[in-house]
Amino acid sequence: MYILGDWRRTHFSNEITPEMDGEEIIVMGWTHSIRKLGKLVFIILRDREGTVQIVVPKQKVSEEVFTTAKSVGREDVIAIKGKVVANEKAPAGFEIIPVEIRILNKAETPLPLDPSEKVPADIDTRLDRRFLDLRRPKIQALFRLRSEMLKSVRDTFYNNGFIEVNTPKLVASATEGGTELFPISYFDREAFLGQSPQLYKQMMMAAGFDRVFEIGPIFRAEEHNTRRHLNEAISIDCEMSFSDEKDAMNVLENVVHNVFVDLYENNQKELRTLDINLNVQETPFPRVTYTEAVDIVNSKGIDMEWGEDFSRAAEKILGDSMEGFYFITEWPTETRPFYTLPNQENPKICKAFDLMYKDLEISSGAQRNHKYDLLVEGIKRMGLNPEGFGTYLEAFKYGMPPHAGWGMGAERFMMIITCQENIRECVLFPRDRQRLTP
Amino acid sequence: MYILGDWRRTHFSNEITPEMDGEEIIVMGWTHSIRKLGKLVFIILRDREGTVQIVVPKQKVSEEVFTTAKSVGREDVIAIKGKVVANEKAPAGFEIIPVEIRILNKAETPLPLDPSEKVPADIDTRLDRRFLDLRRPKIQALFRLRSEMLKSVRDTFYNNGFIEVNTPKLVASATEGGTELFPISYFDREAFLGQSPQLYKQMMMAAGFDRVFEIGPIFRAEEHNTRRHLNEAISIDCEMSFSDEKDAMNVLENVVHNVFVDLYENNQKELRTLDINLNVQETPFPRVTYTEAVDIVNSKGIDMEWGEDFSRAAEKILGDSMEGFYFITEWPTETRPFYTLPNQENPKICKAFDLMYKDLEISSGAQRNHKYDLLVEGIKRMGLNPEGFGTYLEAFKYGMPPHAGWGMGAERFMMIITCQENIRECVLFPRDRQRLTP
Repeated sequence: MYILGDWRRTHFSNEITPEMDGEEIIVMGWTHSIRKLGKLVFIILRDREGTVQIVVPKQKVSEEVFTTAKSVGREDVIAIKGKVVANEKAPAGFEIIPVEIRILNKAETPLPLDPSEKVPADIDTRLDRRFLDLRRPKIQALFRLRSEMLKSVRDTFYNNGFIEVNTPKLVASATEGGTELFPISYFDREAFLGQSPQLYKQMMMAAGFDRVFEIGPIFRAEEHNTRRHLNEAISIDCEMSFSDEKDAMNVLENVVHNVFVDLYENNQKELRTLDINLNVQETPFPRVTYTEAVDIVNSKGIDMEWGEDFSRAAEKILGDSMEGFYFITEWPTETRPFYTLPNQENPKICKAFDLMYKDLEISSGAQRNHKYDLLVEGIKRMGLNPEGFGTYLEAFKYGMPPHAGWGMGAERFMMIITCQENIRECVLFPRDRQRLTP
Repeated sequence: MYILGDWRRTHFSNEITPEMDGEEIIVMGWTHSIRKLGKLVFIILRDREGTVQIVVPKQKVSEEVFTTAKSVGREDVIAIKGKVVANEKAPAGFEIIPVEIRILNKAETPLPLDPSEKVPADIDTRLDRRFLDLRRPKIQALFRLRSEMLKSVRDTFYNNGFIEVNTPKLVASATEGGTELFPISYFDREAFLGQSPQLYKQMMMAAGFDRVFEIGPIFRAEEHNTRRHLNEAISIDCEMSFSDEKDAMNVLENVVHNVFVDLYENNQKELRTLDINLNVQETPFPRVTYTEAVDIVNSKGIDMEWGEDFSRAAEKILGDSMEGFYFITEWPTETRPFYTLPNQENPKICKAFDLMYKDLEISSGAQRNHKYDLLVEGIKRMGLNPEGFGTYLEAFKYGMPPHAGWGMGAERFMMIITCQENIRECVLFPRDRQRLTP
């Protein structure tokens, strides 16, 4: 077997065409399947971009090549130097006849999970052997889309004057209320894992950065195990100064819309692999007030009082009534965190919004409270201690501009883009109440 | 005072020119300085992009405007609607005469830290009041460059076929050796914070993703407090299949080179603010073997045995002998982690490299060991238990391709770009042995 040596891939499988007839190329990848017929061996080699057919006719290759070809097993890692031969009967209009075959690594048999998509497996078995599960073209396509989604999101931020920041994930105190925080041992002290960059991105507004974004992990010690929650997730966050909640909603719907446009334009191959018919929804997205949403829910026979949060049943009813993306605005102040700015005329409602897709909440945001006194009041009203807020609160004393922002769960957004029912499908290595490995 | 209302900034300070004479504009920002002379008030308004001079002559503005102008204090957040008036005597060739001034938020006095760069403060005082420290143009310029650096790094990855991944930061076991890990309480279990995405990005190679990158936090419970270490940092990581250490070094020097080119081309303003004369070093960067480096160190009078790691004194001597960026290659196998591939002919040395800038290591990488048996051997040799490695090790049994990769500390890279002596200067909110706030 080979360490690698001086061979390098010359082409991915999708870069070879019948017009290259006669050219010598090197392909590298996995043995997707192999058929051995007396004097002929067929190998389907799979790489990240697709598959290519290798034909090994005993009469046309050296004895060594034929022997090696016969010894190849499923999922072995192989490198093949060979000639492109145009052939109308071959699935892609050509095949490769090898000059030399190198087995770079063997795969044991039987495989603990079948990477061809023939044998269905439950999600836990798949996640336990995620490295094999990820070889399936559909799964791989999903994570290609995820990478492109993040690229598109950043592009929209850059184009709108946002600066990327990285805020700490190790925090000293459980300021926003401690129930959902993971405690950690930080040398001789207790610390916590950040459940959101909220307080930090607000401090960046006091620092005069004007518009910042961050894409990074958040950690929530939620006990419940649902198909919509994770204990570690990637949050797409932004904050913008001299802006209100409507400005923040505009940026958010722009981010979402541009992702759909970019994936539609650049990723038809992955979308086809996943059988997704991407529907690019035009902006502005519909807006309903919280009060209107409560009326809808009540009119469909689900009892809900003004001032309550939407139950799962209420969300489902709402999702049935609304198409695609929509905002719920003007929430009761009591239902939102202390840093939300109440409406000046009617402080019972506040400048918060959620972005929904049918029955799924994917983003929350608001114009924030930038007034020190109001903020301290809000903190006390939530039963929290202003003294625990340290520099965060101080930042409001020395020139905090009006500002607004939002956070969106990257995995929930991917659920919508790729029509997944279980959020774990959208994470390489999910973390939930039960799962900490691999 | 105003919540914000319907005013929006029409121009940043650097977007206004004398040619706009007579135009009405709205600027928003902080009161950088204010001078009150009987019938004339001068306000320097600072926003993210610079400063602009507001002139308030009692005779030319309403009484309300003049009264408001006189009430403005340093670092108050203000919005000014006014007319651009070309004036050759003004520093920028124009000034703004206000039609209306709105004070959006007051700043208490005295300020706990002076955001003008007149009064020097030690780094701890500055970090304690980071939101004020970050208002200083030099500090803000540094973090603009950091954002641009990350953008440039991603661009090079995208252009070279890398897919972005997010791997978990919560891990079940202290596989690579537990001394530098932060323990966390994960519900009823103990877990740890990831010190590197190493094992995950290698699993992504077994998954057939071919080339992946990740930019995310890493956590190291190192006890020592130096000017080059952090306990939470951002790591730029990549891994590539069917590649050896030389391919990985090529990508790395490309990434570094392109950052310098991009900052040179796009960020002259920030570089000038920081008095940085950026030296774009051409590729390839010099390569010295470990053995050559030891000879250099010994020849300069520092005793060092072959097989030892470089002491701080040895690094400094090396840094004196080498200009700019250079690689140290062909390390003794014993000095590197178990996942490093030993040289086939001489297994005492291995396919590892470090990227150095003078005396500072900024990146480590290698061709990895992709052979299951060799890997198990390596794990045992390091005194670790192969059974603790679970799926990671299993991934090598079922078709792991040859692969290579590296990790680079984003903050160390910024130290070099911006000529900083203390790594804390390159982090918004640093975490070290003593510091967990703000």
